[in-house]
Amino acid sequence: MPANSLPSKIGVIIFPGFHLLDYAGPLDALNILSADHPLTLCTIAATLDPVPTQNSLQDKQGSQFSQSIVPTHTFDNAPDDLEVLLLPGGIGSRGPESDKWMKPQVEYLKRLDLSGKGSIKWVLTVCTGSEILARTGLLDGRRATTNKRAFGDVKAKHPNVEWVAKARWVVDGNIWTSSGISAGIDVTFAWIAEVFGEETAQYVADRSEYERNVDAGNDRYAERWGTV
Amino acid sequence: MPANSLPSKIGVIIFPGFHLLDYAGPLDALNILSADHPLTLCTIAATLDPVPTQNSLQDKQGSQFSQSIVPTHTFDNAPDDLEVLLLPGGIGSRGPESDKWMKPQVEYLKRLDLSGKGSIKWVLTVCTGSEILARTGLLDGRRATTNKRAFGDVKAKHPNVEWVAKARWVVDGNIWTSSGISAGIDVTFAWIAEVFGEETAQYVADRSEYERNVDAGNDRYAERWGTV
Repeated sequence: MPANSLPSKIGVIIFPGFHLLDYAGPLDALNILSADHPLTLCTIAATLDPVPTQNSLQDKQGSQFSQSIVPTHTFDNAPDDLEVLLLPGGIGSRGPESDKWMKPQVEYLKRLDLSGKGSIKWVLTVCTGSEILARTGLLDGRRATTNKRAFGDVKAKHPNVEWVAKARWVVDGNIWTSSGISAGIDVTFAWIAEVFGEETAQYVADRSEYERNVDAGNDRYAERWGTV
Repeated sequence: MPANSLPSKIGVIIFPGFHLLDYAGPLDALNILSADHPLTLCTIAATLDPVPTQNSLQDKQGSQFSQSIVPTHTFDNAPDDLEVLLLPGGIGSRGPESDKWMKPQVEYLKRLDLSGKGSIKWVLTVCTGSEILARTGLLDGRRATTNKRAFGDVKAKHPNVEWVAKARWVVDGNIWTSSGISAGIDVTFAWIAEVFGEETAQYVADRSEYERNVDAGNDRYAERWGTV
């Protein structure tokens, strides 16, 4: 891809109870990349209030162990020229009440053109971020993966998606979905390799001192969590 | 270690230009752990203003690619009963002007009892977080490691520290220092294994779908960045 057509405007959507590493793993690879390529990040949420990672499992345990991220945009004023959209998952998007909590995000996603033919050329999901995306119907009939511990629940909720039980990540057209939490780092490096080139991807990984999993089918956690 | 003496109060120090994954890698392992063990996190900075990751390399490239974290405490009101202290590094702590910028953090660190005999039983550093710690003199005569790309600079600045050129992480008494960025995840799992037990550490890693490097001496990046 010629340098002048490389993507530069990246959006990430966060919500209360998002999973920190789903967000930070991909963004940190892009942080390092942004020292060599001009990139802009929009952090999008329902309001501009800081968004906490604290979740119901921590509440139940008596843990007060939260990280709060400040959004730069809301669903109402996010720029319409984003080129890449990143969707982390997390406990906050799960459970019986989550349809209500996640409604603003799902409505925002439905308003966007995620076909790959509009401004947004790529969508990357991490962990149960693919479950959020599936609520829009966009994944129906398409191949995707998700967190392996949550796999059964996600599959039952969205039976029209071709969920891949054993995959570190899955590419279906312009939609890149990855497995649980840390898999978001690998899918991001795979995406950087595809778009910015393998040499750039490996350079960024070496800067991060990160040992990539470069094989989308290499997924030990499918067995570990009983999805296969 | 009996359950009732397991540590629960964890502090992390952030500063403008801290490196996101240095912070998020360790904290995310602890996020997952905090669903099964009661943990409390204090995020400490010079003021309560959100702390951005944006750094000078991104500025130079024209990238606006920042994540902002909201602190919970300042150096003046941080609790005095922390048991674990986590120190991320990052570009913001480097360069000729950094002695001025980092002064509040270094003065705070100097006020603390980091000997392991006070409330704080463990200090974990990631990447150039060890360089910040070295400014207090605490690492003089002790073994430590740091980011491998920055190794030469860090060693030249703090010649009295026994810097280990090839190590994913180094344990010297109560001080656990790790190599660049992603190495912070491995040192955190090693620390969880030591304190909470190997079974717990592996369970958390499996939840995170993270492939641990469990060998502190396994460090490909020493060769990659020419420290050996």
